[in-house]
Amino acid sequence: MRISALAEATGVSVATLKYYLREGLLHPGAVRSRTQADYDETHVERVRLVRALGDVGGLDLATIRRVLATIAEPDVERVGILGAAQRSLLGEAFVEIDDAPGELDPDSPSRARRFAAARGWRIDPRDPVLDDLDAAWDACDAAGIGVDEARMSAYADATETVAEVDVASVPREPAAAVRQVVLGTVLVDPVLAALRRLAHQHVAVSRETPPS
Amino acid sequence: MRISALAEATGVSVATLKYYLREGLLHPGAVRSRTQADYDETHVERVRLVRALGDVGGLDLATIRRVLATIAEPDVERVGILGAAQRSLLGEAFVEIDDAPGELDPDSPSRARRFAAARGWRIDPRDPVLDDLDAAWDACDAAGIGVDEARMSAYADATETVAEVDVASVPREPAAAVRQVVLGTVLVDPVLAALRRLAHQHVAVSRETPPS
Repeated sequence: MRISALAEATGVSVATLKYYLREGLLHPGAVRSRTQADYDETHVERVRLVRALGDVGGLDLATIRRVLATIAEPDVERVGILGAAQRSLLGEAFVEIDDAPGELDPDSPSRARRFAAARGWRIDPRDPVLDDLDAAWDACDAAGIGVDEARMSAYADATETVAEVDVASVPREPAAAVRQVVLGTVLVDPVLAALRRLAHQHVAVSRETPPS
Repeated sequence: MRISALAEATGVSVATLKYYLREGLLHPGAVRSRTQADYDETHVERVRLVRALGDVGGLDLATIRRVLATIAEPDVERVGILGAAQRSLLGEAFVEIDDAPGELDPDSPSRARRFAAARGWRIDPRDPVLDDLDAAWDACDAAGIGVDEARMSAYADATETVAEVDVASVPREPAAAVRQVVLGTVLVDPVLAALRRLAHQHVAVSRETPPS
């Protein structure tokens, strides 16, 4: 199909498609003439994926580019599936972990590390997501919404259930597994955020007026 | 304190503080002279809150302004606590719901509405978050990560647990309740996202090498 048909099939303007081509987010079409190229279903799929990661997943272009590169050529041998996924999502913040992970320190100055250690979570103490958790927890404190250890434990129980479902859905084949882990990490967050808001409505209404 | 001391106390530059003052995100200090104003602890708290909502919560300035306005003067009488919270977060997309909510249609063309109806969730069918869930679910499909009804149900079970914890933490006094609901909705999402990624690590490691 011509680029105009690709635009129609995806609902993305020709100008934006040309931008994706220039930025390498979309692979070139088959050259038909000096000014025309031919696009196929793989292009339709790729454009939909870029839109999903940007519009729904909220990723910026640099991260989308890293995610697409990881899916295309997962470096599974070296860093494992979660490592490949984490690297494509965290970018600069990714810590290259070649040696065996250390142990979480139950007396760490980091509240997230103490919490994870107390739960018995087996996580590399250098994992930068632990710093994200510290920042997010501090932001709750700064806003005056108390998230104490008990409430954090309840949240951790719920997310452990979610993680079990996530991990169970990962296919065995390494390239497909990386794809599932990377895309699932980004795209299921908005699903969970929407479900949480809907559950708020349901729980609040049910408390006020129990079903008869 | 002078504006320079406020900058030091919050780690936010004087230029940014002046911008917050101009944009009405920060209330004016007490006037001391034609060129000087005096700031206090309420300003420190407010700056920390604006940073938390923007940097961690990912809200844009227009939404932060609405959130702050809602907390300052919650219109609880008219729309209820969840209504006030939702309106400040959703802005334009907020549907003014004055009449009694309808029932979810189990044959709705919207997959999110069919799903919520099948779960027995008591949610107004006009709630725009249902459209968010449709969009997020479609994005998973577009990316080729299959989230079927069973997986969505497992996610919904987990978020219902989270919502129970959230709702239980809401204080009785209406203004404090609005504050807790609005800020908790925004600021706990990043906590849950970080916990989910950490739980992925833990679950994956535990499957590979069960604890001895």
